[in-house]
Amino acid sequence: MRQIAVGIVGYGYWGPNFVRNFNEIDNVEMKYICDLQPANLERHRSRYKSVIFNSDYNELIEDKDLDAIVIATPVDTHFSLAKQALLAGKHVLLSKPMCRSSAQCEELIAIAAEKELVLMVDHTFVYHGPVRLIKQMIDTGELGDLLYLSSTRINLGIFQHDVNVVWDLGAHDFSLLDYLIGRAPKSLQAIGKSHTDTRIEDVAFMTMEFEDDFIAHFHVSWLSPVKIREMMIGGTRKMLMFDDHRPIEKVRIYDKGIELLSKPPETETARYKALVQYRHGEMKAPVYDMTEALKYETLHFVDCIINKKVPLTDGHSGLRVVRLLEIAEQSIKKQSLSSVTLER
Amino acid sequence: MRQIAVGIVGYGYWGPNFVRNFNEIDNVEMKYICDLQPANLERHRSRYKSVIFNSDYNELIEDKDLDAIVIATPVDTHFSLAKQALLAGKHVLLSKPMCRSSAQCEELIAIAAEKELVLMVDHTFVYHGPVRLIKQMIDTGELGDLLYLSSTRINLGIFQHDVNVVWDLGAHDFSLLDYLIGRAPKSLQAIGKSHTDTRIEDVAFMTMEFEDDFIAHFHVSWLSPVKIREMMIGGTRKMLMFDDHRPIEKVRIYDKGIELLSKPPETETARYKALVQYRHGEMKAPVYDMTEALKYETLHFVDCIINKKVPLTDGHSGLRVVRLLEIAEQSIKKQSLSSVTLER
Amino acid sequence: MRQIAVGIVGYGYWGPNFVRNFNEIDNVEMKYICDLQPANLERHRSRYKSVIFNSDYNELIEDKDLDAIVIATPVDTHFSLAKQALLAGKHVLLSKPMCRSSAQCEELIAIAAEKELVLMVDHTFVYHGPVRLIKQMIDTGELGDLLYLSSTRINLGIFQHDVNVVWDLGAHDFSLLDYLIGRAPKSLQAIGKSHTDTRIEDVAFMTMEFEDDFIAHFHVSWLSPVKIREMMIGGTRKMLMFDDHRPIEKVRIYDKGIELLSKPPETETARYKALVQYRHGEMKAPVYDMTEALKYETLHFVDCIINKKVPLTDGHSGLRVVRLLEIAEQSIKKQSLSSVTLER
Amino acid sequence: MRQIAVGIVGYGYWGPNFVRNFNEIDNVEMKYICDLQPANLERHRSRYKSVIFNSDYNELIEDKDLDAIVIATPVDTHFSLAKQALLAGKHVLLSKPMCRSSAQCEELIAIAAEKELVLMVDHTFVYHGPVRLIKQMIDTGELGDLLYLSSTRINLGIFQHDVNVVWDLGAHDFSLLDYLIGRAPKSLQAIGKSHTDTRIEDVAFMTMEFEDDFIAHFHVSWLSPVKIREMMIGGTRKMLMFDDHRPIEKVRIYDKGIELLSKPPETETARYKALVQYRHGEMKAPVYDMTEALKYETLHFVDCIINKKVPLTDGHSGLRVVRLLEIAEQSIKKQSLSSVTLER
Repeated sequence: MRQIAVGIVGYGYWGPNFVRNFNEIDNVEMKYICDLQPANLERHRSRYKSVIFNSDYNELIEDKDLDAIVIATPVDTHFSLAKQALLAGKHVLLSKPMCRSSAQCEELIAIAAEKELVLMVDHTFVYHGPVRLIKQMIDTGELGDLLYLSSTRINLGIFQHDVNVVWDLGAHDFSLLDYLIGRAPKSLQAIGKSHTDTRIEDVAFMTMEFEDDFIAHFHVSWLSPVKIREMMIGGTRKMLMFDDHRPIEKVRIYDKGIELLSKPPETETARYKALVQYRHGEMKAPVYDMTEALKYETLHFVDCIINKKVPLTDGHSGLRVVRLLEIAEQSIKKQSLSSVTLER
Repeated sequence: MRQIAVGIVGYGYWGPNFVRNFNEIDNVEMKYICDLQPANLERHRSRYKSVIFNSDYNELIEDKDLDAIVIATPVDTHFSLAKQALLAGKHVLLSKPMCRSSAQCEELIAIAAEKELVLMVDHTFVYHGPVRLIKQMIDTGELGDLLYLSSTRINLGIFQHDVNVVWDLGAHDFSLLDYLIGRAPKSLQAIGKSHTDTRIEDVAFMTMEFEDDFIAHFHVSWLSPVKIREMMIGGTRKMLMFDDHRPIEKVRIYDKGIELLSKPPETETARYKALVQYRHGEMKAPVYDMTEALKYETLHFVDCIINKKVPLTDGHSGLRVVRLLEIAEQSIKKQSLSSVTLER
Repeated sequence: MRQIAVGIVGYGYWGPNFVRNFNEIDNVEMKYICDLQPANLERHRSRYKSVIFNSDYNELIEDKDLDAIVIATPVDTHFSLAKQALLAGKHVLLSKPMCRSSAQCEELIAIAAEKELVLMVDHTFVYHGPVRLIKQMIDTGELGDLLYLSSTRINLGIFQHDVNVVWDLGAHDFSLLDYLIGRAPKSLQAIGKSHTDTRIEDVAFMTMEFEDDFIAHFHVSWLSPVKIREMMIGGTRKMLMFDDHRPIEKVRIYDKGIELLSKPPETETARYKALVQYRHGEMKAPVYDMTEALKYETLHFVDCIINKKVPLTDGHSGLRVVRLLEIAEQSIKKQSLSSVTLER
Repeated sequence: MRQIAVGIVGYGYWGPNFVRNFNEIDNVEMKYICDLQPANLERHRSRYKSVIFNSDYNELIEDKDLDAIVIATPVDTHFSLAKQALLAGKHVLLSKPMCRSSAQCEELIAIAAEKELVLMVDHTFVYHGPVRLIKQMIDTGELGDLLYLSSTRINLGIFQHDVNVVWDLGAHDFSLLDYLIGRAPKSLQAIGKSHTDTRIEDVAFMTMEFEDDFIAHFHVSWLSPVKIREMMIGGTRKMLMFDDHRPIEKVRIYDKGIELLSKPPETETARYKALVQYRHGEMKAPVYDMTEALKYETLHFVDCIINKKVPLTDGHSGLRVVRLLEIAEQSIKKQSLSSVTLER
């Protein structure tokens, strides 16, 4: 079996998870761990004795035997690091969000296409057992027509310091939306607020409308005293709650819904009652694959390299997510113009 | 002690709770239960043997010995019923929302003022033990400067059929905001969606911005498979979660927060890290008054009548809430204009 | 339809719930509320204007038109009050536990049989929607062969002062066991402890063994800071958790279990692994009847009187529960003899 | 700094956690991973490239440069493996329970004492942040006099196959009791049941009585559909719930309790009411050290070796736990004799 040599640049919060997973794959040689911070490099030297720890990215770029580079650095550096890697003929796995702009994403996609390299984005949740179960439920019609998606992704504090809460937490939500719903919204409204002198937004509320009556809403925050990871999806047949912070039974499916009646209402006041009824049935929490998402993701990356496949979360999905992030950012900037102003 | 004779009009979902509470007050004679639906009138005849059950509101208006009328009918009828009552010299307790328009609220306020009658609005939560505790924490500065308020009030189905989910569930939130925060927003943005042929919105997301960095957000829905009643309030010193659906420990206070540092950051990338730090302390669930809110509210109404006091939830607070509801409704209508439209 | 006149003796903590329910039944005349405490009598005079409030039990006994008496007094008075009622030809509904001794129970059963009167015991939970659902699951074999029942019924403080925690809380558990399992244990061991000078046990742990491998365990306490009402029942096919303190989804059914393999183990150490495997499947929370248990119970009592039926919770079920309570009490007294004493 | 060479025997379920932690300690050389199962040895070869993986325990015993041996094998092998190690002059860290009998424990203690070697038992929970917090609360009197300890440690399935559920899960509870309470019970009663042909008990209930009114109870099971790790401790001043399965706020402290009144009761029936009152105050969830328990434990083992200290969980604590396990096992065997047998 062909051996794939992998190097990683960025060994802070998330990088070690990549390394742990790649290191467990038989036909992967985890070759480099590269980081500018000496402290980060010191952490696991004894754990990975055969890995080269360095702070010079050029060493990776110039190593002819290195097949792939994983980029787990702050987003502002993604484009430059990925471009160098692709131009040097390396396959690339980029942390989310893919780049700081859609133009950058498009340029990387073009280079990768021309050089026939794998360009994959780390939309981790797409490889998460509960999410794949939900995707299946949507695709098979078990939920019926989708009515809404509402997500709350809030906690106290941040892990990255270079972007606002939308680019940090919202990127997860938008990648889930992209995977699960597979449609672009017709409009997006976002309101965000910074509560510090940094002027970096720490709380944001975003609403997307679609061509039909489907609506999606996202609440992201770094200022919540409790960590919440909840996503609710309502359909005409069933509704579900995905609570990723629970240790077990992360997905609960409710046989509950709304039923439209065809009988015309006799009086105006009885109109609503006549047309709409609610159905209350059982709840169930199905079994799902509990394997770590990153395990599937890293295996998939290696499989795409060896077998020349297109990744499930390729550059185009990365681009779609970055476009939504850009629009949300724009909307936050212009939103004061659009809201109803109150007379005082 | 002076005896107050009380009649109620509207004996559907909420009316019986008023009657049960007024009936327990010593110096109240619960005199009339009036409703147009014969079935509603039949329900508790045997329970309240000395009460007059009727379907003719005029009988209440014309009864010279009746001191006060409680109005628990659909909101579209509030103005007309309340106006008749006030003009006939009756004190009035109106269910929320007070009226269908702010102009109607203003007219009722004017009549009540001229005739020196008590005009009170049933903003029940203002009399709720946990809410009064939260009010006290805000007023004494225990939470510090307020950063945000975020509320989720969702369930499956509705209790009233004549208004949308904003007028139904949002009215509770806006009355809580009015009581707890005591300031009007400088802007309000709302997005709502109807998923039925009735075109009555069943899901809505509303965001209010204020003069300072405080932001408030409300998620209301009749389409949620689970009932959620959660309000989070974050301050610079402490943060709290009010979960009204829990049987106990409804208020949890987190000694968690954000700390701004004054040291200037050395590099741009370290800016956020240098300026902001998070504090993680203990959580506590304080003791609060567990008395039914409606008990205090009905006692307060009687006290206002006897002692010529201004109710805590007077016509002006009812008006302020209705103004916010009107603006939310306006915003829902115009919002498609204001959002960022995506190129496809 | 025949009208049934009902009187109640004992109007403290639980009595008002009986009255509220009997009062809602069409063909019941709620005639007397009798209690020795004047304060108890004052509470709902205005709510039930046509009921006679008195403190003289003889008035009920001597009223020829009174059909039935509900006894909701401390357990020490049950026998005497019930005997008088039965001898006077009244049907009787007795609070749990039925009497202070099995001999007393037997005497009441004999009198009721001779006089052809309904003698019913208030084992409320037997009429509770979730419990009836569980009974059905057991009877239809959905759980498979039963392996264990484990119950935790604990809270802070008590409602009755004349018996220990076993007679108070344990009576509920034993009536549930009697109804759901329908078999008597072959042995019962109980350990109880009083932490006050009253020497009344406030904490107890009880274990019952049965002819087969089924085992039942009960933890009851007045000294728990949290209120817990949990019962777990494990079967070979499925297992369930009944959490009566949750507002919804009180019953959760787990498609989990144990599978015995027939293949003989090769080595002694591998014996367990070879013979036993665990099955992990989905969880579901079924729909159940949410009607108040006491509504069914009071309707059933009236139905038994009118149609000469034997109540589901008749004197014999009351007797079986009292027998278990007696044995538990005996076991608590003698248990120091039976335990392994540690050398020090 | 002196370098300590460590070898481990047993690399199944728990062993890898030891290795991961020892590997992170600067002055530890993780030298051997020894296991009889080839599959276990293959798992982490690539992760720990400098460690010697072997299946020959003698190699460890005979290596003069090896300072310490960690034993993470099935309990039946503990005594023999530990004795060889101690006789060869190695310090020993033994998984719980220490040995299969107290006689074996005593022999190991004697050898270690004679040869001045560290003999430590892996009572992991003693090093757990929440447990150390609870210990402090007990020792400082914050809980008042202790009334009871009640523990539920149940789940579906097992990790070890050579002992019953008492030796598996109960060992954790007994080590917690030993650490937190620090007293031996005066008696212990246990009832256990096997539901398989293996006749190995899979469910057990154990109750311990102490010289005063303190009582401890343990429910352990491999047959529960849900995983529960709850321990409640009640004192005269405060009560606490330790829920180790929650991701956060594992310890909740209730300012609730019981108050004994000195006023003599006037009547017998009012006796209880007169003497006992309940206090209902706030709940709080304090901050505790969230470091992995095994990190502290492995550091402590190394510290004891280098600085010739007595471990917190030394051979004597291991022995005390094994004694309780032996007594529980005895009690299960003889319990049918001691319980009250019911006439049928």
